Amino acid sequence: MRKNHDVIRMEIGEPDFLTPEPVIEAAKVALKDNSLGYTPALGTPELREAIANFYAEKFCVKIPAERIIVTSGSSASLLLICALLFGRDDEVLVADPSYPCNRQFIRAMEAYAKAIPTGPQSNYQLTAELIEQNWGHTTRGVLLATPSNPTGTLIDRCELSKISDHIRVHGGTLIVDEIYNGLVYDEPASTYLSIGNDAFVINSFSKYFNMTGWRLGWMVVPEGTQKDIEKLAQNLFICPSALAQKAALACFRSDTLEILERRRQEFCARRNFLVPALKQLGFEIPVIPGGGFYIYADSSNLSSDSQKFCAEMLERTHVAFTPGIDFGKYRANDHVRFAYAASLPRLEQAIERIDKALRTHCVHSLL
Amino acid sequence: MRKNHDVIRMEIGEPDFLTPEPVIEAAKVALKDNSLGYTPALGTPELREAIANFYAEKFCVKIPAERIIVTSGSSASLLLICALLFGRDDEVLVADPSYPCNRQFIRAMEAYAKAIPTGPQSNYQLTAELIEQNWGHTTRGVLLATPSNPTGTLIDRCELSKISDHIRVHGGTLIVDEIYNGLVYDEPASTYLSIGNDAFVINSFSKYFNMTGWRLGWMVVPEGTQKDIEKLAQNLFICPSALAQKAALACFRSDTLEILERRRQEFCARRNFLVPALKQLGFEIPVIPGGGFYIYADSSNLSSDSQKFCAEMLERTHVAFTPGIDFGKYRANDHVRFAYAASLPRLEQAIERIDKALRTHCVHSLL
Repeated sequence: MRKNHDVIRMEIGEPDFLTPEPVIEAAKVALKDNSLGYTPALGTPELREAIANFYAEKFCVKIPAERIIVTSGSSASLLLICALLFGRDDEVLVADPSYPCNRQFIRAMEAYAKAIPTGPQSNYQLTAELIEQNWGHTTRGVLLATPSNPTGTLIDRCELSKISDHIRVHGGTLIVDEIYNGLVYDEPASTYLSIGNDAFVINSFSKYFNMTGWRLGWMVVPEGTQKDIEKLAQNLFICPSALAQKAALACFRSDTLEILERRRQEFCARRNFLVPALKQLGFEIPVIPGGGFYIYADSSNLSSDSQKFCAEMLERTHVAFTPGIDFGKYRANDHVRFAYAASLPRLEQAIERIDKALRTHCVHSLL
Repeated sequence: MRKNHDVIRMEIGEPDFLTPEPVIEAAKVALKDNSLGYTPALGTPELREAIANFYAEKFCVKIPAERIIVTSGSSASLLLICALLFGRDDEVLVADPSYPCNRQFIRAMEAYAKAIPTGPQSNYQLTAELIEQNWGHTTRGVLLATPSNPTGTLIDRCELSKISDHIRVHGGTLIVDEIYNGLVYDEPASTYLSIGNDAFVINSFSKYFNMTGWRLGWMVVPEGTQKDIEKLAQNLFICPSALAQKAALACFRSDTLEILERRRQEFCARRNFLVPALKQLGFEIPVIPGGGFYIYADSSNLSSDSQKFCAEMLERTHVAFTPGIDFGKYRANDHVRFAYAASLPRLEQAIERIDKALRTHCVHSLL
């Protein structure tokens, strides 16, 4: 593609909102203090306490601060969990489609991510039944994401509870990726932590809190695993960013939370526009994506090769979105992911452009 | 130990200097801009270019910016290197004593760090001869550190060249940890990169540049390995901190470099005080440590159990330093590490306290 085109980027997994101003201000104060040395490996006590309070206030769950571990992005949480739990030839169950990087953490530990095909009948999510069917003698755990990237779908609370019961029976470990936690549009935000205490639950300051480039996340770990996680964290990371930790304390202030609530509503409005608009164009969206900022659309009415379709759409309309192959194998050619981390007018423009291209029948990969 | 004692901390591997003011100012400007999203996985082009210029100006070596990879601390560099190069049951040669965390990266990849005993006769460093003697059929690489933590010693340029020749013959890979690069006191700073282009060379903004809590480092990789490193970095880390990268650009300004040079001189003065003072107390320091901020002292004249000795000294004098066992096994009971990341008056006070304790003969573990 030639440069300098006005590309509408619906392929990006990053909020288009800037870091909230109170967080910026807190960082300025921290810079003035210039006390930015190594912090404890598991994060500053202040931030761990603040996160514990956040769980208490937002979700009415009481999590001791000792179970909260701050990391350099949720990436570092996943690495620590995988380093702790999995070794060579261990198997971990994940959904197909799911966020591809997560599988690499498993692979880095010489373990194996078994991707289980999922479709609209299970909200593109694993179920207790699917887990039961696929549990083998080397299976050690299950990695779920709710809301999910790329599908934007959630796992129902009852199903999640059933899933954790099944895994417990098998002596495996549940890992719940909640990095899109809070970005939900049809029901109040919830967390696995109100269901059970024996899973590893991952969260992030990147998505809901709009702090992507700061590289800060956290996880809640089961009681008794902290010592081992601390050893790993000390060795592999030393500590998360001191400045990011001080800034993140401002995330839980009421003025910040108000900003974030307005942004959540903006995301919701975008989704509410996009889902019917995409359907109008011929995409099928059998499950309304209730969270995140993604729509996983069935493009099989429009093309039998979603990768070619994405490439052609980018070339002809300068709208970028992601082919299913980036997230798995199962019916990947029939799916594309739209991210709505762009303003509503831009999304409207994107729909217009795609519409025009489809109407002019100049898309080669059309059926 | 009871709380509230005035402990002189000579066990810490962190400079006592604050982040230089120009770096703080650069961070403030970046906060004002609030453009703090994800950066490219390998770091911003600006910072990679700035580091390349730094090598050209300080060391007269021309490194293309494409070979420079910015990471979340040097920890992330080591993880990426180990993930790229080593797999199950591979062996990597390291010195005993050496920085213990480094071995954990090797272990995380299911590979094995073989620690080779070193002593004063080789400056507590591996030599080409030791590497030759210890190279086995599963050996894949060698990890060196110059200046070294805990010994503060450097590897002579000729020896380093010989070492890299030997490793090349065996088809292995050399990794040089230069995170204390620039902190040298008896000769001009140098880098392996003026010797060869086929090693992985790790550096950091933590030590010389006094940016520990910012978690930013870099590595220089051999031509041709960037694509694979990029894939790993994208998956495992997404990117290093955007804010830290913008701030670090100020590290290479002349006003910052002047501050750092004054601090280097201060480190040098501390070392010049400490080495004879410790010898006076009965420690043996057969090799003058030319870099870093560590002295690895032979304490066998004072105690046959350095761990007990450290514990007792902490209890009785409130001076903290580190037993050899933290860095390896070879003659670990006969050695302790002193860090001089504390002001000269504090170090003088520490020597006085230890002197007094040794004179009153109340140290139980004395021979």
